Amino acid sequence: MKKAMTYRDAGVDINKGNEAVDKIKPLVARTKRPEVLGGLGGFGGLFQVPKGYENPVLVSGTDGIGTKLKVAFMCGKHDTIGIDAVAMCVNDILVAGAEPLFFLDYVAVGQLDPDQLAEVVAGIAEGCVQAGCALIGGETAEMPGFYQAGEYDVAGFSVGIVEKEALLDGSAVKEGDLILGLPSTGLHSNGYSLARKIAFDRAGKTAEDYIDALGETLGEALLRPTRIYIKDVLPILKGQPGVIHAMAHITGGGLVENVPRVLPAGLSAEIKVDTWPRLPIFDWLAAEGQVPEDDMWRTFNMGIGLAVVVAAEEAAQVKADFDSRGVRYYEIGRVVAGDQSVVLV
Amino acid sequence: MKKAMTYRDAGVDINKGNEAVDKIKPLVARTKRPEVLGGLGGFGGLFQVPKGYENPVLVSGTDGIGTKLKVAFMCGKHDTIGIDAVAMCVNDILVAGAEPLFFLDYVAVGQLDPDQLAEVVAGIAEGCVQAGCALIGGETAEMPGFYQAGEYDVAGFSVGIVEKEALLDGSAVKEGDLILGLPSTGLHSNGYSLARKIAFDRAGKTAEDYIDALGETLGEALLRPTRIYIKDVLPILKGQPGVIHAMAHITGGGLVENVPRVLPAGLSAEIKVDTWPRLPIFDWLAAEGQVPEDDMWRTFNMGIGLAVVVAAEEAAQVKADFDSRGVRYYEIGRVVAGDQSVVLV
Repeated sequence: MKKAMTYRDAGVDINKGNEAVDKIKPLVARTKRPEVLGGLGGFGGLFQVPKGYENPVLVSGTDGIGTKLKVAFMCGKHDTIGIDAVAMCVNDILVAGAEPLFFLDYVAVGQLDPDQLAEVVAGIAEGCVQAGCALIGGETAEMPGFYQAGEYDVAGFSVGIVEKEALLDGSAVKEGDLILGLPSTGLHSNGYSLARKIAFDRAGKTAEDYIDALGETLGEALLRPTRIYIKDVLPILKGQPGVIHAMAHITGGGLVENVPRVLPAGLSAEIKVDTWPRLPIFDWLAAEGQVPEDDMWRTFNMGIGLAVVVAAEEAAQVKADFDSRGVRYYEIGRVVAGDQSVVLV
Repeated sequence: MKKAMTYRDAGVDINKGNEAVDKIKPLVARTKRPEVLGGLGGFGGLFQVPKGYENPVLVSGTDGIGTKLKVAFMCGKHDTIGIDAVAMCVNDILVAGAEPLFFLDYVAVGQLDPDQLAEVVAGIAEGCVQAGCALIGGETAEMPGFYQAGEYDVAGFSVGIVEKEALLDGSAVKEGDLILGLPSTGLHSNGYSLARKIAFDRAGKTAEDYIDALGETLGEALLRPTRIYIKDVLPILKGQPGVIHAMAHITGGGLVENVPRVLPAGLSAEIKVDTWPRLPIFDWLAAEGQVPEDDMWRTFNMGIGLAVVVAAEEAAQVKADFDSRGVRYYEIGRVVAGDQSVVLV
């Protein structure tokens, strides 16, 4: 007689799933906002549309972390990668002028390790706290035979809200506008296929190797979480409506490809590359990989994670606001006549 | 001198990405709703909150397709798996009483194949059309060295809306309520780790093998898309408010674990297992895997994809509405006094 088969025989352990849910509950509680209805366990996450909007528009973003995950696997450190997942989504929402409201995560694993999953979700919850949004749902997919042992993928989804009249789509950008750059913390979540190839294949380093030029290990430099710009910028969007003309989240493609996404026809951005300190990780990667300068600028953020386009005559107010809250920024360029490109000078 | 490295050397081809975007655009256009603002290419997807709600609540769901994807890989058929991704999300939103508004997808690939990606997105767009929601964004993550050649993962995210007073959370369920079951099309998107182990390991079949008991190949039976119940049920939610007391989307855990999620304390569901035709795929899997009956019921939907709990005195109206629109249903049980469990009789 054949042996009977059950779901556990197939590699899926529902008890481990319940253990993981218990570990996750207090992490989720950290992110609660008053608009959240119900608890974990319902079929869908519930969030009341905030009051006071005339023509509310929902702004949604989804993103993953890409192969930065491999660095987390190498380092055996899983509690910051969730910050990256949140950052990649909410910064995209912010540049539409919107306030992120809530977040949901999708985590796919080969075999569920409740402790590892709790570390991942702890990072997600930390990201949500930094962004001021509520973690209202998620899916943990156990997919035996799909991911390598100990590996996983993470995707995030976030929804924000903005008054239709305050939506930023680049149409407000004018010649002469100033471009302020908010510093990145490092690579953020882009360019890791190239960076890993240079660091681990070409240079033959490991994540544990201390690099003098960086003043830290490669793992520390490459795993540093993406900065979340919500609380830096939201006070200006709400307190000085209309002053910010556009923003660009500097992700894959760098300043060169992301800034033009918010430039109207007939305008370009002149970016002065020596107006902010270049982070040592970029110089190290360029040198080790002999990466052409043009490729560096088209692959990495080069030290600027968010570009904020402001009216020149109102830039002083914006700077004063940043200064008063200790938000570091650089005046990195201006909007000039052109063909919707970035001119590096 | 070392050879210079670029992003393409690292396995990421941005031209292929642009080719994929061109293929995807017309698919996305199929799903457009009047509330959608802007086009593809912005940082976030934009959707106006529909007018006419007093206290609108957003209901969100995220889900993947699990190891059903492996069946798609075996069959080399990629244009229906997107329907599953949409179905898993929007059916979860529906059971809160909400209308799905929009959807975003996350597709992670080892190496981008624009044609394959377009097939996946065609399925997602078809699912969105079936659900009446707009595809307003997505992320295609190219992750070299992460997924096996030709393989990928898909996660979906959807947001719906419901008037707060019309939110279904199970609290309206009363003793004596009838439970109507809407048929599933097969396994939907759950139980595939066990099903694949039985079909391909234990029984030694391939996806191409024709199975007499099924009247089709295993691949056809296992890859059939998850049914989307939105257009079946939404007219009743809107036209006969209050008549549906609760719904349960029958996913992992089957009727036995999903129906109790909407039962108040002191009530159970008595389900008569002979009131609907059992699909042959379940009998075949049970026989080939010698799966205990209890495990079958806790793993698979067993032929019912959505359980709809209605007031007994108003059930006739609901049935008449289903009948008038050709929506098949079975009266599968009723709500009885109990301990929030399902009693199979």
